[in-house]
Amino acid sequence: MQQAQTQDVMEKIVSLCKRRGFVFQSSEIYGGLAATWDYGPLGAELKRNLKEVWWRSNVYERDDIDGLDAAILMHPMTWMASGHVSNFEDTLVDCKGCKKRFKVENITGKKCPECGGELTEPRQFNMMLKTHLGPIEDATSLTYMRPETAQGIFVNFQNVVNSMRRKVPFGVAQMGKSFRNEVTTKSFTFRSREFEQMEIEFFVKPGTDEDWYRKWVEERYGWYIKYGIRKENLRKREHEKTELAHYAKACTDIEYNFPFGWSELEGIANRTDFDLKQHMQLSGKDLVFFDEVTKERYIPYVIEPSGGIDRSILAFLADAYREEEVKGEKRVSLAFHKRLAPLKVAVLPLLRNRPEIVELAKNITNGLRKEMKVMYDDTASIGRLYRRQDEVGTPYCVTVDVDSLADKKVTVRDRDTMLQDRIDIANIKEYLIEKLA
Amino acid sequence: MQQAQTQDVMEKIVSLCKRRGFVFQSSEIYGGLAATWDYGPLGAELKRNLKEVWWRSNVYERDDIDGLDAAILMHPMTWMASGHVSNFEDTLVDCKGCKKRFKVENITGKKCPECGGELTEPRQFNMMLKTHLGPIEDATSLTYMRPETAQGIFVNFQNVVNSMRRKVPFGVAQMGKSFRNEVTTKSFTFRSREFEQMEIEFFVKPGTDEDWYRKWVEERYGWYIKYGIRKENLRKREHEKTELAHYAKACTDIEYNFPFGWSELEGIANRTDFDLKQHMQLSGKDLVFFDEVTKERYIPYVIEPSGGIDRSILAFLADAYREEEVKGEKRVSLAFHKRLAPLKVAVLPLLRNRPEIVELAKNITNGLRKEMKVMYDDTASIGRLYRRQDEVGTPYCVTVDVDSLADKKVTVRDRDTMLQDRIDIANIKEYLIEKLA
Repeated sequence: MQQAQTQDVMEKIVSLCKRRGFVFQSSEIYGGLAATWDYGPLGAELKRNLKEVWWRSNVYERDDIDGLDAAILMHPMTWMASGHVSNFEDTLVDCKGCKKRFKVENITGKKCPECGGELTEPRQFNMMLKTHLGPIEDATSLTYMRPETAQGIFVNFQNVVNSMRRKVPFGVAQMGKSFRNEVTTKSFTFRSREFEQMEIEFFVKPGTDEDWYRKWVEERYGWYIKYGIRKENLRKREHEKTELAHYAKACTDIEYNFPFGWSELEGIANRTDFDLKQHMQLSGKDLVFFDEVTKERYIPYVIEPSGGIDRSILAFLADAYREEEVKGEKRVSLAFHKRLAPLKVAVLPLLRNRPEIVELAKNITNGLRKEMKVMYDDTASIGRLYRRQDEVGTPYCVTVDVDSLADKKVTVRDRDTMLQDRIDIANIKEYLIEKLA
Repeated sequence: MQQAQTQDVMEKIVSLCKRRGFVFQSSEIYGGLAATWDYGPLGAELKRNLKEVWWRSNVYERDDIDGLDAAILMHPMTWMASGHVSNFEDTLVDCKGCKKRFKVENITGKKCPECGGELTEPRQFNMMLKTHLGPIEDATSLTYMRPETAQGIFVNFQNVVNSMRRKVPFGVAQMGKSFRNEVTTKSFTFRSREFEQMEIEFFVKPGTDEDWYRKWVEERYGWYIKYGIRKENLRKREHEKTELAHYAKACTDIEYNFPFGWSELEGIANRTDFDLKQHMQLSGKDLVFFDEVTKERYIPYVIEPSGGIDRSILAFLADAYREEEVKGEKRVSLAFHKRLAPLKVAVLPLLRNRPEIVELAKNITNGLRKEMKVMYDDTASIGRLYRRQDEVGTPYCVTVDVDSLADKKVTVRDRDTMLQDRIDIANIKEYLIEKLA
């Protein structure tokens, strides 16, 4: 099998996503809402699975990370402390002709790239989405929809230390929605105004931060490989000093070779003690860590592996996309890692007009429901049913045929090899659980 | 064991939630943000578990429901169609003295309940949180943070039918954040401005709606019982005709007997064809369902079981809370259903100054990590360690003692019975998996 290398692979993925229920344009019946997307039935499962493996890798399988689930709405002082109120800005120009707005960095020359009209002077524009809490809309009720989940962790640093008796080094992991008022959005779900993050803030003793930074770069790179991204499509890119955000001492992006070019999936940053210091200063609270063993007091440094869930989903989709010739026909499949596949098993009756076969197939389906996401389908011929399942990345198809009634066996077909096994119905659950483990 | 019936049980739960990392006030270091809450490490696990059992019950174990994960930001026309722009209002009065604002329904007499001052005339106040997308803040960029997840399902009705080849009856399940600009907030996490919903829109043929409505009331009532709410603390309350929302033909609330009184956990409403009709009208799109077998065309009726995740968590916490006397000491425990318990197992060395015991305990912990959420703790005496785990509802404690080094067995203690089993270390994983299943 080889990855489809054609230039239109992105269009094919977008089309497949819509047709098969991975991703829909948000509020599509109203013409859509710019740069927001809805996950359909299979996309919702894919996203759930991705979030589950991330959480398990970090919160369950490690002993040095706790989870957190902080609110999207935070006290506005949070964003003063973090620097977002003063620094989180795009520089924009307007076209005096067509009234469109552009990022200065996307303008070459001094004319509007769309209509050739005259442009205004550049202006600063804060990218946080605003809202007002309470009945009166004024400065005192102004707050923001968080532009990153990270700050929810920093403001809870002492709460986690106290409630979980944590000692540095330890981390806090969080997944959740963030919002940015992006002017330029692009490339399907890659950059959207509403997006989901998976972030860890890992607190370490100053002086050990460079070691931990390197460890986390390797850890996170390995995670994408483990769940199926091919090595040749993944790279680490260390930021130049001039690229670094105001809070960062070092940063490495993990980039994926999307059909539209190499782009960031996740950034691992050494945020130093910037955030905790800022919050100490603005809140007046003591966020110094006291080490009871060494009797030292310090503000921890922070290593932040910050990944985008939506763009990871897009990368896993793109990397899994396969086109090949099988017996003269084009076969499209999504070779997802088994843990990520939205449907684990499809149960298919070979003959849908034989009630005993249909009944047996339905019974098998129901017997699997508690253990895995399973689908029953009898709405087409077997060849077509296989193609449907290949196209959404279902690792195994279980086919019930006439022989099954007599020999109490079914055929299990592997998505990637297309090889078939004949398995006792009595053992099918255990067989699949083991295959999917 | 008996439920703590004291009036201060709510205060005890709030205190336990903060101290043990279930729930923190949002942005607490800045004095908090009114009516928003953060889930700490154990609260985040409890919430994950609750969401997981809801999703599995509805999307995995049934064959007639698909999942969805739609965006929080939707096209503003959505809220014209749903009636939220014109109808989702509180009627408020201001005090001319202390400037506080109140819901009219909470005012008895014509004076301010806080300072006795004079009140203004009542005014309407829309409860949706507003924001602006794009760089210009005007009417054309105005949109809302969704006040309910339901509409994300309605606008995707045709997308789900088409991509999943669904036939009525079928449902769509979704969990996610919603936002309401509540003026009166109360009772800890029960009513907050940012909250999470678990909603199903179940589409049925008109005429079958009353049957399905009754089925769903029973189904959802049974779900809370299944996961541990005691029958005496749960009741169904059917709405009077005068109470019904503008879109509903019938509605039943499932109420829990909170320490602050009987209050709604979930509402099951017969929303008729109101929403789909409205969206057809405003979008101009055809949302009529065509039944290929009977050749009928109709707009489905909708039965909506709509539950609050945060208030369910609070109910499961309150219902699990136990105080009892054990050997002259007060024991506090959270008797969570095993599926909901944030930590499944704690591994505790009896003697923390014996390196072989500590090492063995850590090895056992690491051997369990991939299978369940497990915690190692050696920071206190065994009695205290048990109390800590009881207080957060950990179903099993595994204790490693001196004998364990010789006989290769450990003690497993049950949270509820406090009975102890001696189990071979070689079998401990399977033993716990079976117990927790």
